[in-house]
Amino acid sequence: MVTISKDHPRYNSLVLRDKLVDGRKRGITSIHGLIAYGRGEAFDYLIGERTTTNAREATAAVGAYLLTAQRPIISVNGNVAALAPAELAELSEITEAPLEINLYHRSTQRSEKIEQHLRDFGARRILTGRDYVQLPGIASERAKVDKGGIFLADVVFVPLEDGDRCEALKKSGKAVLVVDLNPFSRTALAASVTVVDELTRTMGNLIEFTRKMQHAGDQERLEVLKSKFDNIQNLKISYSIILSRLQTASFFKKDPIDVLFSIPSHPQE
Amino acid sequence: MVTISKDHPRYNSLVLRDKLVDGRKRGITSIHGLIAYGRGEAFDYLIGERTTTNAREATAAVGAYLLTAQRPIISVNGNVAALAPAELAELSEITEAPLEINLYHRSTQRSEKIEQHLRDFGARRILTGRDYVQLPGIASERAKVDKGGIFLADVVFVPLEDGDRCEALKKSGKAVLVVDLNPFSRTALAASVTVVDELTRTMGNLIEFTRKMQHAGDQERLEVLKSKFDNIQNLKISYSIILSRLQTASFFKKDPIDVLFSIPSHPQE
Repeated sequence: MVTISKDHPRYNSLVLRDKLVDGRKRGITSIHGLIAYGRGEAFDYLIGERTTTNAREATAAVGAYLLTAQRPIISVNGNVAALAPAELAELSEITEAPLEINLYHRSTQRSEKIEQHLRDFGARRILTGRDYVQLPGIASERAKVDKGGIFLADVVFVPLEDGDRCEALKKSGKAVLVVDLNPFSRTALAASVTVVDELTRTMGNLIEFTRKMQHAGDQERLEVLKSKFDNIQNLKISYSIILSRLQTASFFKKDPIDVLFSIPSHPQE
Repeated sequence: MVTISKDHPRYNSLVLRDKLVDGRKRGITSIHGLIAYGRGEAFDYLIGERTTTNAREATAAVGAYLLTAQRPIISVNGNVAALAPAELAELSEITEAPLEINLYHRSTQRSEKIEQHLRDFGARRILTGRDYVQLPGIASERAKVDKGGIFLADVVFVPLEDGDRCEALKKSGKAVLVVDLNPFSRTALAASVTVVDELTRTMGNLIEFTRKMQHAGDQERLEVLKSKFDNIQNLKISYSIILSRLQTASFFKKDPIDVLFSIPSHPQE
């Protein structure tokens, strides 16, 4: 990886990018995954590159679902594995939820590389979907889910899910928890809980929350958190934040350079 | 490339993605370029995935600058070469502007591949920057510009430029013409003309316009077009379009699925 100065105003963003680029070099991230990631970045600019209060509440709801599940599972794709392998391993330990590798562009080779990558970061519960069943209603390879994993799970945490599968998982009666920076996406709208936040920020908050709440005595509080959570309300808040940031931007009012997005640009190419 | 059904509601977008993925496989597109492309996609959703009236006017202004320049040049990076090689070749012929290959992640190998790719699509005037001078004020490798190309040019068309270099080119007294889907970017604000539109749509319109206007008798009309163009006004309009699309979106009002972005999602990974 390239060394990036911590003073750089886009330090965090550049570190994440380099993790993905590194993931690509190691055969973990797919090419399409890089484009999808860029799309998320744009929405992160719009949301302000920070965890909003409602996103924090949604993250707590995700934690509550995971900790009260009968059979929780965490579905992992190439981007997620490249961006947050240590966090995935830790969350899997805390919640006892296995990590199921589930790829849109499925390949045994890539799956094995991701498995090794996760193990390198301490993950112990990993499912690969080699023994799979087909979920109905999905055209892509992601229809294939592990017999003992997503197929049987009551709660599925799928950071960075696609719309088709999110809807199919929901229809099959599971609680579906996603992280999606675009509050307008089909995934965001179909999920039980949508954290409109950047993945690594979410993972950090989720680990903190689940560590605190993992003890049996907290079950009742967790049930309350789940039952009080309203995902449409949550998405409406993220939408309002984007809208009001755009409306109140000093954009063009004084110095045209002094704008909402007056940040050093990323390399374009 | 994968064959995509023309009936697919995201046909155009998927074709462009596949061009980039293909470009990556051939060593033309950089990994960072894929992420940057994804960011543009998000802004294209916001703008409505169409050429707005002000974008069409900005495209005409770009054409006017190119056709009235003393020494016009078109600066080409990996994404641009992968997405619109035939259009670049055609525009270069019409305007007699050479194509200068100028890469953020500079490498002779990639530069040669891009050169060959452009030649395969009929480009004849190509500069590679092997004989370069350094532009002041830019940290990256993009500071290196061809001695006989960008360095001497009075008008530089740089689709998909980065902010640093756009500002440096502007400071050196050149007219800088860019295509940028993010009307808030430093590039968009620093340029002489910013087309807030998707690259291939812009190139199609630009070719149509320059073909029509390339005859000497039109010089006066072109000068008027240039002098009347106000880039800040142009960007304000794109900004208003994004804002009003977000404000008037049926989002959440009735069926949560019936929203602004209710489009089949792209593969997430």
